[in-house]
Amino acid sequence: MIFLFTDFGASDIYAGQVKAVLQQHAPKEPVIDLLHNAPAFNAKAGAHLLAALAAGLPKDSITLAVVDPGVGGARQPVAVAADGRWFVGPDNGLISVAAARAKKSEAFTIGWRPASLSDSFHGRDLFAPVAAMLARGDRKTARLKKGALAVGFGADDLGEIIYVDHFGNLVTGLRAGGVPRDRVLRINGRAIRYARVFSEAKAGEVFWYENSLGLVEVAANSASAQQVLGFKPGAALG
Amino acid sequence: MIFLFTDFGASDIYAGQVKAVLQQHAPKEPVIDLLHNAPAFNAKAGAHLLAALAAGLPKDSITLAVVDPGVGGARQPVAVAADGRWFVGPDNGLISVAAARAKKSEAFTIGWRPASLSDSFHGRDLFAPVAAMLARGDRKTARLKKGALAVGFGADDLGEIIYVDHFGNLVTGLRAGGVPRDRVLRINGRAIRYARVFSEAKAGEVFWYENSLGLVEVAANSASAQQVLGFKPGAALG
Amino acid sequence: MIFLFTDFGASDIYAGQVKAVLQQHAPKEPVIDLLHNAPAFNAKAGAHLLAALAAGLPKDSITLAVVDPGVGGARQPVAVAADGRWFVGPDNGLISVAAARAKKSEAFTIGWRPASLSDSFHGRDLFAPVAAMLARGDRKTARLKKGALAVGFGADDLGEIIYVDHFGNLVTGLRAGGVPRDRVLRINGRAIRYARVFSEAKAGEVFWYENSLGLVEVAANSASAQQVLGFKPGAALG
Repeated sequence: MIFLFTDFGASDIYAGQVKAVLQQHAPKEPVIDLLHNAPAFNAKAGAHLLAALAAGLPKDSITLAVVDPGVGGARQPVAVAADGRWFVGPDNGLISVAAARAKKSEAFTIGWRPASLSDSFHGRDLFAPVAAMLARGDRKTARLKKGALAVGFGADDLGEIIYVDHFGNLVTGLRAGGVPRDRVLRINGRAIRYARVFSEAKAGEVFWYENSLGLVEVAANSASAQQVLGFKPGAALG
Repeated sequence: MIFLFTDFGASDIYAGQVKAVLQQHAPKEPVIDLLHNAPAFNAKAGAHLLAALAAGLPKDSITLAVVDPGVGGARQPVAVAADGRWFVGPDNGLISVAAARAKKSEAFTIGWRPASLSDSFHGRDLFAPVAAMLARGDRKTARLKKGALAVGFGADDLGEIIYVDHFGNLVTGLRAGGVPRDRVLRINGRAIRYARVFSEAKAGEVFWYENSLGLVEVAANSASAQQVLGFKPGAALG
Repeated sequence: MIFLFTDFGASDIYAGQVKAVLQQHAPKEPVIDLLHNAPAFNAKAGAHLLAALAAGLPKDSITLAVVDPGVGGARQPVAVAADGRWFVGPDNGLISVAAARAKKSEAFTIGWRPASLSDSFHGRDLFAPVAAMLARGDRKTARLKKGALAVGFGADDLGEIIYVDHFGNLVTGLRAGGVPRDRVLRINGRAIRYARVFSEAKAGEVFWYENSLGLVEVAANSASAQQVLGFKPGAALG
């Protein structure tokens, strides 16, 4: 099972080209769009979101993870096996939080290169064929070699908004398990209290809760927290 | 064949998580995104849209239908077999129009519960595994028990805009078969006449026609009816 | 392998209905969303984008290509075999650039008609069943007959913006292989110079480069070229 986690855009011309390559190189492998709207150009936010999503991915799955503003530059391609799940993508930190939180994690450099490699779309030309090789169990062709990640964001939580969903809910990089329910969060100077579920808040009221990924999420009952808070991406939590 | 009809957003993190669960529980079953942009928080509009789409779904298909503002509250999960098609989702009326219009319809309570159930994402934790059980023909594990729907919107048409497509066309809850072609519709005080096809209307002209789902749809030739009419969601037809 | 190239919208109710038909008529055939956000109502821009994407599609693949403002009118359905790839869609020029650039290309009229054909959704009712027939190798049921395309945009490049991606990059209809690197492009009076990769440009600077489809693309480093240029769709290159 191959998952796609990218900032290619769900409506754009990129994901389909990646799937065409996967289908040709690993025809029997199911391919699932996990997310194509990862925060653009923001490998750190993406790394925390990917780590939260990774916990729900099946063992032996392969995730092609591409948020890659440095494509065509010096950053190297990398493959990581973390608690039985594979991740393939650029070595820019995107995979590093999932790797750092795993009980057992191994990083590999990728020696294989395609005959033709575009400067701007390694997702299609390099990462997709390698993901297909791993799906077929063919680590030899991929020329994996044990190494270490060049960029790492660590295993710790991130006190920032890492994702805004289409309801306007603000997902943070804080794992809710470690946050006391009486903690008051602050965004743009506004105090935000805990509620267990949406229906515990008044209509339009902003609150935080533990979302289905186990993260602290700021939401508003029957409204968009993003609009209510006048939120701008990158806002830190106080 | 499993269809997904939700308000999870086509670009968001939710549909992929549902598909990961379906793929693990029913690996051979094709999964098709029918719609992830159902009107958010509006089970009634969604119910009428789902009923119109249901007519085109194959017999023996299973549709996971989730527009679920009350998730985590008192509403119960339900499965409905309507003219040979299964629907799984919250008992909040969303499935009720498809059920009421079927020649033969049976509703079932769902006794199965997952080991871990999030408060906000029953689509992933409860409805997806149950849809996979039904796809495998395993009603026993799902612990289905004949019951009745708690919320029903009836079989009648709905004289409102129930969906706006990305062209700006306004889909109504009126089945066109019962609407005389000389009927003049009114939205925001504006009179709207019938045309058989787009090319029968002048450029920019607003008209209504029978869409490919058999519903009355308000459109504009080479323009967005939504923009031309200054339409706001929820507008009733006069 | 069946690819979908349409202006149906990635978030809308149309692609799912097409896939339901394909799944019923060719259950074993993988279906890949290549693009559902082709420029709406613009068969010429779509034709150039499709021709660029076609080069990356596998031989023996079938592409259902629908940008069809004349649906329900006089334009005919057509199937084209171009260098071993099939294309099925309206005979309005959409397939013509891919056909004209192929070394070997044959056009066919389609004699088959469904029992029930909506006026506005031939993608579902006509093109999808025919694409499934071709995927099954059944040209007889489709009643293909050698013919010629009624509308052709030729094989030449198009000096216009044909697509804007979600990063705000502006894709042109110029194949970059034939454009000298010292050529200065003009959009809205602004001079745009070549850079090999994004990192060669200053932050916010607008440049052109050869994109991963081999086309000239106007981009801005860490910014949206569309926003920087105040670009409006349809802009010609000077």
